Amino acid sequence: MPDKSDKQISVFAPATVANLGLGFDVLGLALIEPGDTVKAQVVLEPGLRISKISGDGGALPLEAADNTAGIAAWHTLKKAGVEIGIELEIDKGLPIGSGLGSSAASAAAAAYAVNLLLGSPLRKKELIGPCIEAEAAVSGRHADNVAPALLGGLILIRSMQPLDLVRLPIPEDLFVVVVTPEVELSTKEARAVLPGSVPLPDLVSNTANLAALVSAFYSGDLGMIARCVPDKVVTPARAELIPGCMDVINAALDAGALGSSISGSGPSVFSFCHSQRSGIQVAEAMAAAFSKADLSCRKVVSPGNCCGVRRL
Amino acid sequence: MPDKSDKQISVFAPATVANLGLGFDVLGLALIEPGDTVKAQVVLEPGLRISKISGDGGALPLEAADNTAGIAAWHTLKKAGVEIGIELEIDKGLPIGSGLGSSAASAAAAAYAVNLLLGSPLRKKELIGPCIEAEAAVSGRHADNVAPALLGGLILIRSMQPLDLVRLPIPEDLFVVVVTPEVELSTKEARAVLPGSVPLPDLVSNTANLAALVSAFYSGDLGMIARCVPDKVVTPARAELIPGCMDVINAALDAGALGSSISGSGPSVFSFCHSQRSGIQVAEAMAAAFSKADLSCRKVVSPGNCCGVRRL
Repeated sequence: MPDKSDKQISVFAPATVANLGLGFDVLGLALIEPGDTVKAQVVLEPGLRISKISGDGGALPLEAADNTAGIAAWHTLKKAGVEIGIELEIDKGLPIGSGLGSSAASAAAAAYAVNLLLGSPLRKKELIGPCIEAEAAVSGRHADNVAPALLGGLILIRSMQPLDLVRLPIPEDLFVVVVTPEVELSTKEARAVLPGSVPLPDLVSNTANLAALVSAFYSGDLGMIARCVPDKVVTPARAELIPGCMDVINAALDAGALGSSISGSGPSVFSFCHSQRSGIQVAEAMAAAFSKADLSCRKVVSPGNCCGVRRL
Repeated sequence: MPDKSDKQISVFAPATVANLGLGFDVLGLALIEPGDTVKAQVVLEPGLRISKISGDGGALPLEAADNTAGIAAWHTLKKAGVEIGIELEIDKGLPIGSGLGSSAASAAAAAYAVNLLLGSPLRKKELIGPCIEAEAAVSGRHADNVAPALLGGLILIRSMQPLDLVRLPIPEDLFVVVVTPEVELSTKEARAVLPGSVPLPDLVSNTANLAALVSAFYSGDLGMIARCVPDKVVTPARAELIPGCMDVINAALDAGALGSSISGSGPSVFSFCHSQRSGIQVAEAMAAAFSKADLSCRKVVSPGNCCGVRRL
């Protein structure tokens, strides 16, 4: 008997933009690229093993219990009630610590690949729990990256306990630009600068603007989206950690972006744009602003409505 | 020449439910009844005068500069750039200090009546400014009562400065129950118990729930509405001021309400219901709970989607 089955499944999970300005811990959106690829294969030896990680520059642990792909895969097996041996191979397309949901993409790809290997005993939504466990181990218990990485599109996390998600519609002509400078920022560091409490008027302002943003996604009112993105609570605190951040946001707005803010915990910065053409111009302007802070960067112009994890 | 013109205009403005649970200072909804009626008439003597107020038990000032109807009327005249004499007669159908937007209803009715007398130089939306001035004089600068009192339906106040409003859709089968106990609670007193700041996790919870509530109004997901109404920030603080408040809310939920919370700054309590029939049952249960706290009350079962101010 060979020590591996022939069946190998390859899965891609995309980058995601969490928060989207003022939806801190509440909103997340899937991008078209970049993403992580996970190959999963049944092996004779029981348990979970990561055989190889590429694209991470040696930064990520091969130990399955310390790696979000391994943790999500393990919890998926457990939830499905199956005890077999599985070997994972991870190809990181996503930069680590970039504010694009790198840990979530690995988790989502691994959970989905394992579930496919088992013949899909779990629905996609049921993979969110295992992926949240993975996130909790490395960056805190939140779902605003793993939910869109699995489900695609724009997801509102109403509640974590119990988990309650809402898929929001996305206007057809909406594009999302993300610019990622070549500096790393840990989620833990980015969480440490957050205020412990918020003045009541800021609560009112943030609830009002997020409510109007949701309304604008339904009504397609792009002008309203533009007015709703700025956030007084989380963005100003985190902008301090990202060289040139406010200049990049202002360059995006000057170039025609509907709204611009930090992606996840940063350092990536995203913009909403009203067309692909505008998105390309905005991406150039944002990259130029980062280069003034001596940072080169990767640019992505993505349709607003992209699918999540998928088999390759 | 007679000292009054023959032209007298009568206008009705409805009660409104502000906040709706967690939309503090952000959401307001018009009810079908009760409401205030304002009659306006051009008179020879320049300036604004209130000739009579009924239904208030003598509580409200006849002095136009101290009365929200007078203040809103004066600002409407000023905005229209007209200097004439106007006499107002106010019939208060709304109890004062009830959390149903009593001051806003008088203001909305007066502003609309004056604008009609002038031949409608201003659009309805332009009357919101004059009505906010009136609110600011008695209970703080907010628009969550005057906007729905004027415009009808469910209004989201995204921003006060500049004023930016969004009309939200209301599911056809949604009914709103309001129960008003016979105790008065001043908005100032109800504002004094509010926390000055809010822990960040409560901000996340409130933004998430309000965002999901807005989504549910668009999608018609009544179950989601039910899950979104509870609020951890404002409602618990204000419930202390209203005898039996939490019992009334729980009685409403036990009787089948989708959600229940304080209307505006209280003491009225509102519930969302999935039908008129359910609304009637819920109203009975809420009134019974208030009667256990030795409070009799007025009940209203209103369609969710009601028009605002109107000429009689």
